[in-house]
Amino acid sequence: MYSLNVRDHFMIAHSFTGEVFGPAQRLHGATYVVDATFRREALDADGLVVDIGLASQQLSAILATMNYQNLDDHPEFEDQNTTTEFLAHQIHLRLADAIERGKLGPSGKGLAALCVTLHESHVAWASYEADL
Amino acid sequence: MYSLNVRDHFMIAHSFTGEVFGPAQRLHGATYVVDATFRREALDADGLVVDIGLASQQLSAILATMNYQNLDDHPEFEDQNTTTEFLAHQIHLRLADAIERGKLGPSGKGLAALCVTLHESHVAWASYEADL
Amino acid sequence: MYSLNVRDHFMIAHSFTGEVFGPAQRLHGATYVVDATFRREALDADGLVVDIGLASQQLSAILATMNYQNLDDHPEFEDQNTTTEFLAHQIHLRLADAIERGKLGPSGKGLAALCVTLHESHVAWASYEADL
Amino acid sequence: MYSLNVRDHFMIAHSFTGEVFGPAQRLHGATYVVDATFRREALDADGLVVDIGLASQQLSAILATMNYQNLDDHPEFEDQNTTTEFLAHQIHLRLADAIERGKLGPSGKGLAALCVTLHESHVAWASYEADL
Amino acid sequence: MYSLNVRDHFMIAHSFTGEVFGPAQRLHGATYVVDATFRREALDADGLVVDIGLASQQLSAILATMNYQNLDDHPEFEDQNTTTEFLAHQIHLRLADAIERGKLGPSGKGLAALCVTLHESHVAWASYEADL
Amino acid sequence: MYSLNVRDHFMIAHSFTGEVFGPAQRLHGATYVVDATFRREALDADGLVVDIGLASQQLSAILATMNYQNLDDHPEFEDQNTTTEFLAHQIHLRLADAIERGKLGPSGKGLAALCVTLHESHVAWASYEADL
Repeated sequence: MYSLNVRDHFMIAHSFTGEVFGPAQRLHGATYVVDATFRREALDADGLVVDIGLASQQLSAILATMNYQNLDDHPEFEDQNTTTEFLAHQIHLRLADAIERGKLGPSGKGLAALCVTLHESHVAWASYEADL
Repeated sequence: MYSLNVRDHFMIAHSFTGEVFGPAQRLHGATYVVDATFRREALDADGLVVDIGLASQQLSAILATMNYQNLDDHPEFEDQNTTTEFLAHQIHLRLADAIERGKLGPSGKGLAALCVTLHESHVAWASYEADL
Repeated sequence: MYSLNVRDHFMIAHSFTGEVFGPAQRLHGATYVVDATFRREALDADGLVVDIGLASQQLSAILATMNYQNLDDHPEFEDQNTTTEFLAHQIHLRLADAIERGKLGPSGKGLAALCVTLHESHVAWASYEADL
Repeated sequence: MYSLNVRDHFMIAHSFTGEVFGPAQRLHGATYVVDATFRREALDADGLVVDIGLASQQLSAILATMNYQNLDDHPEFEDQNTTTEFLAHQIHLRLADAIERGKLGPSGKGLAALCVTLHESHVAWASYEADL
Repeated sequence: MYSLNVRDHFMIAHSFTGEVFGPAQRLHGATYVVDATFRREALDADGLVVDIGLASQQLSAILATMNYQNLDDHPEFEDQNTTTEFLAHQIHLRLADAIERGKLGPSGKGLAALCVTLHESHVAWASYEADL
Repeated sequence: MYSLNVRDHFMIAHSFTGEVFGPAQRLHGATYVVDATFRREALDADGLVVDIGLASQQLSAILATMNYQNLDDHPEFEDQNTTTEFLAHQIHLRLADAIERGKLGPSGKGLAALCVTLHESHVAWASYEADL
């Protein structure tokens, strides 16, 4: 299995609901350094997993819908704890949708799986991986 | 599959038995930077893989039983080469046991798998992964 | 010149005032991974730049006064853009004050300089350095 | 499953053929920081995944056949786009062959899988993983 | 003294002249991950060392004049060994010139010093620092 | 000022004397990832700060005198706490001596300063810098 990874980041505010979150129930924020890892069984005709330029653009466009925002006010995340693992899944859904709509080019449709990882500090990260 | 990772470290002395180890047969030591990666299929009711606070505490408590020690004198490792890969397994066993005893909270019992990685330098690391 | 560095992190929300900030004028947030670098000309009697345990505790205590907060509501930062470089200076002031009050032990008073660095992503960081 | 990773690097020139590559059609180059990750189900009699010294030597020897070269002139890569993912596969083939020829020692034959990752910058990497 | 750092990268081919370079006399290449560190004594009216958006754009524009090129053919580097340390100086010269021409905004003119660092692998980097 | 950095590592056992060290008074160990940073005002005739091959060899040779050892038994460190900052100084002394003896080549004698940094974990490092 081949994998190709591109990295970007976004910066948001949010708060969490539930005693398990302790002080993180207060409004605070995070930088998320995001890795999008694209997998496929065989390379395409150009010798690529995916067009890295298109992959970077799509990841950046998806992060731009959340970047420099308070996720507590984001219409799509109402009544949701926007935890690191939840956000990894959300970005996965949006990237998978972009792949299906052909935004990563024709050979993007040959991708087998996608993993999205969000690094929230030097000691913690979360990811979501699923087949496409 | 969702994953959540927490990082900590410990510092030990040890020596190895066997010609394959060359100069590492002498008493020396290592800093191990440890990643514990918890996996589950679906998030719990709070939107979490696991309570990251409890996960960090349990990892730290397990590392404390080895930290600042000479592992050659550790009663549980008698006649064992405490290689990086062996130690990754040992920490995996102890974390898996803590999960089973409920030390990571009720939703910790929904975890599917665990990977423990020990970074021993900027050029070498080892890990052990198994289902829970 | 000797230097000793300890690392920790904190997570905050804030917004900026001024057209130069573009979308960062909106309420957003950041993870800051913080390096506190202590410098002195000669080691103390124990062979140390500073007691690393006390240094880590003081840094953590200072970060706790901002961690999981919206800095827009922080009484000490009214009418201030809490930029990365501004926050590096603020943490420097608080650590320098702790050193002067003896919180890093008697040999902490022999420190010559302090640098505080805040990493805000994998591509940007800021620092403030000054003699003590 | 146990894993053991060793890291090395090599520096090459190359160019790509195909409009998808844009400016990378010109002769340019890259530093590839290479991770070779060896996997096996159970440790060998010494408590090892593989002899890390032999693993490092073999990886280094394989990289030496490409290091400080223009891959456009490399006889084995004629009419090939030597993309990061293609090179990950090539190094995988060569390491798998070395394992089969016993170059990683007798216990190297017990390895279950191998992953080769090439980091081409702080924001992009590619890998190839397959069973042995 | 305040510092602010932005990071980017470029990928080039080149060769070196002189026996000291050994195999690096052959045509090969490198990825350079570049840190540009801007320093000033006091923050500007917005609380900034420099406009990070303009700084990133200027760095990217300068790297674009070398990116995806064979530096052996670059008109400005004729008869020059384009070593890592030489290139750090060249990028420093170009960034300092951009600052003087006002490309980093009016407050860019208040900058005191600039350091440019090129990381060529996980084990080697070079930098050039000078007052502005 | 130009700087060039090379990285290597070594692994040792040791213990400390003095209550300030708490549990680190016990025999334990560390991996030290070492950065040796060489500085000079102007590049040599080849466009170099120093011959990076010779620099790496000398650093490796110096680390080999301590690697895989218990520093409590090392004849040169009797009655010394081999703290990270102390060891940074010791390696600085040995590298400075090698430079003076011409081990880094004739142009090594033009070096202006040297900084040696020892990373002991992902959260702590120490260094010693002095003119040559």
